[in-house]
Amino acid sequence: MQTGRSAESEPGPVRSEPKIVDPERLVFFSDAVVAIAITLLALELPVPAGHTNAELWRDLGRNVNEYVAFLISFAVIGGHWFVHHRTFGHVARLSGRLVRWNMLWLLMIVLTPFVTRVIVGDGAFAARFTLYAAIQALASVAFLLAVHEMDRHGLTRAGTPRSLFGNSYRILSVAAGAFAVSIPLAFVTHWAYACWAAIPFVTRVQRLAAAAQRRPRRAAV
Amino acid sequence: MQTGRSAESEPGPVRSEPKIVDPERLVFFSDAVVAIAITLLALELPVPAGHTNAELWRDLGRNVNEYVAFLISFAVIGGHWFVHHRTFGHVARLSGRLVRWNMLWLLMIVLTPFVTRVIVGDGAFAARFTLYAAIQALASVAFLLAVHEMDRHGLTRAGTPRSLFGNSYRILSVAAGAFAVSIPLAFVTHWAYACWAAIPFVTRVQRLAAAAQRRPRRAAV
Amino acid sequence: MQTGRSAESEPGPVRSEPKIVDPERLVFFSDAVVAIAITLLALELPVPAGHTNAELWRDLGRNVNEYVAFLISFAVIGGHWFVHHRTFGHVARLSGRLVRWNMLWLLMIVLTPFVTRVIVGDGAFAARFTLYAAIQALASVAFLLAVHEMDRHGLTRAGTPRSLFGNSYRILSVAAGAFAVSIPLAFVTHWAYACWAAIPFVTRVQRLAAAAQRRPRRAAV
Amino acid sequence: MQTGRSAESEPGPVRSEPKIVDPERLVFFSDAVVAIAITLLALELPVPAGHTNAELWRDLGRNVNEYVAFLISFAVIGGHWFVHHRTFGHVARLSGRLVRWNMLWLLMIVLTPFVTRVIVGDGAFAARFTLYAAIQALASVAFLLAVHEMDRHGLTRAGTPRSLFGNSYRILSVAAGAFAVSIPLAFVTHWAYACWAAIPFVTRVQRLAAAAQRRPRRAAV
Repeated sequence: MQTGRSAESEPGPVRSEPKIVDPERLVFFSDAVVAIAITLLALELPVPAGHTNAELWRDLGRNVNEYVAFLISFAVIGGHWFVHHRTFGHVARLSGRLVRWNMLWLLMIVLTPFVTRVIVGDGAFAARFTLYAAIQALASVAFLLAVHEMDRHGLTRAGTPRSLFGNSYRILSVAAGAFAVSIPLAFVTHWAYACWAAIPFVTRVQRLAAAAQRRPRRAAV
Repeated sequence: MQTGRSAESEPGPVRSEPKIVDPERLVFFSDAVVAIAITLLALELPVPAGHTNAELWRDLGRNVNEYVAFLISFAVIGGHWFVHHRTFGHVARLSGRLVRWNMLWLLMIVLTPFVTRVIVGDGAFAARFTLYAAIQALASVAFLLAVHEMDRHGLTRAGTPRSLFGNSYRILSVAAGAFAVSIPLAFVTHWAYACWAAIPFVTRVQRLAAAAQRRPRRAAV
Repeated sequence: MQTGRSAESEPGPVRSEPKIVDPERLVFFSDAVVAIAITLLALELPVPAGHTNAELWRDLGRNVNEYVAFLISFAVIGGHWFVHHRTFGHVARLSGRLVRWNMLWLLMIVLTPFVTRVIVGDGAFAARFTLYAAIQALASVAFLLAVHEMDRHGLTRAGTPRSLFGNSYRILSVAAGAFAVSIPLAFVTHWAYACWAAIPFVTRVQRLAAAAQRRPRRAAV
Repeated sequence: MQTGRSAESEPGPVRSEPKIVDPERLVFFSDAVVAIAITLLALELPVPAGHTNAELWRDLGRNVNEYVAFLISFAVIGGHWFVHHRTFGHVARLSGRLVRWNMLWLLMIVLTPFVTRVIVGDGAFAARFTLYAAIQALASVAFLLAVHEMDRHGLTRAGTPRSLFGNSYRILSVAAGAFAVSIPLAFVTHWAYACWAAIPFVTRVQRLAAAAQRRPRRAAV
């Protein structure tokens, strides 16, 4: 979309290298994929059965695992999307490699409704948990590599705050680490889930710490 | 999307605080989720069976509940979307809390096709009705909180008419109230549905009353 | 999206009446719904079975009705979308009624994958055909009313060619008429489908005739 | 979207011929369809069963064909999308024929999740393979015709590098050729898949060769 207007306002074709893909269109495409994946999560929810109110509430309770898994996946995809938004809003141009890391990230997003169906199955807890956590860890790593690519090749707009990269590296490392660490734990205990719950807490603490550090500097400016 | 252009036209990075998420992209993402949820509603419609025309019409009649529930959910999601549009078109910037209320609202939208499947089941009327109405009441409350956040922290553009907030508060309170009130009623009578039907009537009457109030004031200006 | 920028460039809030909904966002939402509906069509296609190549080809042939119905629905939704695009590209502002006709049109689009599943069933040809054709006729009528609303209340941009309305009225009337006429025919013969095939032919002939008429006028200008 | 703004900035309706469809909206619609198709691929993945971890891993291994087919289709749709992006980012206006080739291309994209379900079935390898490869070859040919239409009727913006068409023709011919050639091979050997794997390699070699050729020319400029 930007292309059209910027081309009109620009005096001539100043960019020497052919543009690979418009950042906006990649963002748009990614948003659509994420939106579909997050909506499809609810497609598989078990419809409670029961002919009396009491029976229906009981059946709802029986499938509580499925409902909790749905909420977790909703939060996980929502979290991935939030980080994507935060960083891609600053991207000015794309490299082929950035597009590829983004596609790998999308692959993991697309697989999330599938691993959600896997994790709610009966038995084989550790194996199911591993599949789910591995996909999420890979999503975080793929996006970490995307952010690294933006950072290293200066693909963001002038004026992008340095803290953006720092924040993104921090959040994504915490997420990737927590998902990875939870895998061996799952072979020992069902409490491996607690690792995931730590992600928002740790990132929030880190953010507050970073904000505390930044504030004096700003005041100095 | 706006970011790109405004950043180019702006002389420098005037915004001191890092932007959380572009309002346009949040709107876009929300629209995509709503569009998918509203389209998925039809995916579950029972295909009428029958080898003669008469049999097919009869079978269509037998599933009339499902078709009516589909139409209600289509109208409900359409209504939620309409209020979202009306308000978010005026949002200039986002706060973290606004994004979170919006995600909670989206969660309820995503659950609407699921509770539509629940409500058309046989028996346990009050329990099924409660699940459906609770999700819709929560959607209204989540969005009420989103509008409150816009209002309190001045996240809308300069020149946004005050009436926007008034209208939104009114419509959303009526909707949340009607869905909430219908829940205890459902344990007494199937006519609890009538509460929902009141929503468009009440909001329209309120709107006309508000317009009547506003007109003299405008004339004075 | 336009809102953001135009509001920034505008000196002040010149519009006295509150804007109902941004045309762009309505178009976007409609596009997303149509895109989902057209993609879901393929979700129901019967996967051919067979352990030898010959068996698979035979099974593919046995389900030929389903594949043809898919292609027809793809063309029908594509056609509806094309007319929507052509006209909404010129819309400058919305009225509440235009939004409502558009939602009614979307309802018919959303129902198209459903009636496609209905029409491929065995037996009860006329009843199935009626459901399909009625939904398509209603879609055409809903959009005819939308175009009428744009036309009557001057909702399009200055400089919109008058021929736009003429063309749209013509195409939509032909479509609505052909789908409506095919319904009684379906009770007599399976050739009722031929009515639909006539739509592109008739509209093309009309377009050529209209173009022939317009050319001299233009030359005169 | 561009329409709105350009129409406002333009002094008057300079375009004599009525615009068929906004390129941006076509791109948007195509993106949404591709995003849905790529996400639906994962909907059909077989959920592994098993009550012990070992059983689950074994079941995962048993369905490896399905998972590989999913990955191939993800890469194939991703590849089609990438070429679409690259070229449509330069399109300034549309012709009716370009819209039609694009719709034919979309039809093949929409059919890709279906042929993915077909190709993973048991037995009848050559027939299943033929269906899949034929759809992909047709997608490449449809887009080749779209690019040809852009090129012949000058539908791209001024300043579009000539290399864009050369590159697109090359990639699309290689893809169409590889998918077409793989069909007869599938009747002889399961290694027909190797043809597809050759596509990225061949196009990369061609690109490097073309870049080597171009570089001296640029230096001369």
